[in-house]
Amino acid sequence: MKFLEERIKADGRVYPGSILKVDSFLNHQIDVGLMDQIGETFYQKYKDRGITRVMTIEASGIAIACAAARFFGVPMVFAKKTKSLNLGPDLYESTVHSYTKKTDYQVTISKKYLTSEDHILIVDDFLATGCALEGLLDLCHQAGATVEGIGICIEKVFQGGGKMLREKGYSVTSLAMIESMSDDGDIVFQEGEN
Amino acid sequence: MKFLEERIKADGRVYPGSILKVDSFLNHQIDVGLMDQIGETFYQKYKDRGITRVMTIEASGIAIACAAARFFGVPMVFAKKTKSLNLGPDLYESTVHSYTKKTDYQVTISKKYLTSEDHILIVDDFLATGCALEGLLDLCHQAGATVEGIGICIEKVFQGGGKMLREKGYSVTSLAMIESMSDDGDIVFQEGEN
Repeated sequence: MKFLEERIKADGRVYPGSILKVDSFLNHQIDVGLMDQIGETFYQKYKDRGITRVMTIEASGIAIACAAARFFGVPMVFAKKTKSLNLGPDLYESTVHSYTKKTDYQVTISKKYLTSEDHILIVDDFLATGCALEGLLDLCHQAGATVEGIGICIEKVFQGGGKMLREKGYSVTSLAMIESMSDDGDIVFQEGEN
Repeated sequence: MKFLEERIKADGRVYPGSILKVDSFLNHQIDVGLMDQIGETFYQKYKDRGITRVMTIEASGIAIACAAARFFGVPMVFAKKTKSLNLGPDLYESTVHSYTKKTDYQVTISKKYLTSEDHILIVDDFLATGCALEGLLDLCHQAGATVEGIGICIEKVFQGGGKMLREKGYSVTSLAMIESMSDDGDIVFQEGEN
């Protein structure tokens, strides 16, 4: 799964404060061939888990989730971000705290597209503190759906979200695991099993 | 191009106020096989136009734009919605008025991913009044990019945006053109060339 590390080394840019910009291929402009590679990698990892839906959160998870869902031959569904509370009886909703924006927002999903029959693969572009993923996991819990795995493109290991989720027992597959970044642009990737 | 009309007849739901819900296959849960059909249809229509990028706006355009970009073999790029003004010199920005939400918002795109060399295919899920598309067209105009075509899944003909854009000389391809909707759920599609 080194292909994403290689791409980050070639085209990612590091800014002070451990900010990694990958907007040339992952979350603003999108390399659709890379999406296919990512989608197939998640498929190879979770193809025996009876996945019924691939789930993500808008906006930058959508391209990744679509690519994965094509390999699984299942629908994808994306949770929506909103600032409204009490959106109605047809939705599951959960509150997410954004550390970067210092604000709370709601994530919602229609009860029609997440059910107790579902075996879910959750995917997203980044895993840092894990707050957004906890919101998605809460939606799955409310629905009684089974979370079979979590597929992440870039995990910022030093922000602890991946460790927290693995300790809770989730199968987290991260294609690039960043151990540290320096302000002068060096990125250290974590070796070993991911 | 009747496949999307058929799908709307089968799975779309009409609510009072000419609201069409297609969230089971197009903009909440997404049928990725349908995305491929849509992407290929836009490709067949615009494959001779030297498309260099497929452009859309977050969030529900992303799945469609990715599917189209795969056929063209080019990157896709999505404009971001924000409420901030004066976002910096690296971005093009334009103001869009939302009729449904009665508010203005900014759409932005990095100057790196939209240039005067570009031949752009814009795609989106809905075309109603055309306000969001006018924002995207303004971004292209600022960049000096050439807009080769606009690919739309569902055009609400009675809201006038498609007519306005065609009168300005744009090539608009809509896969399903809705002439009218009644509160009891009947949808009348426009016949003829789209």
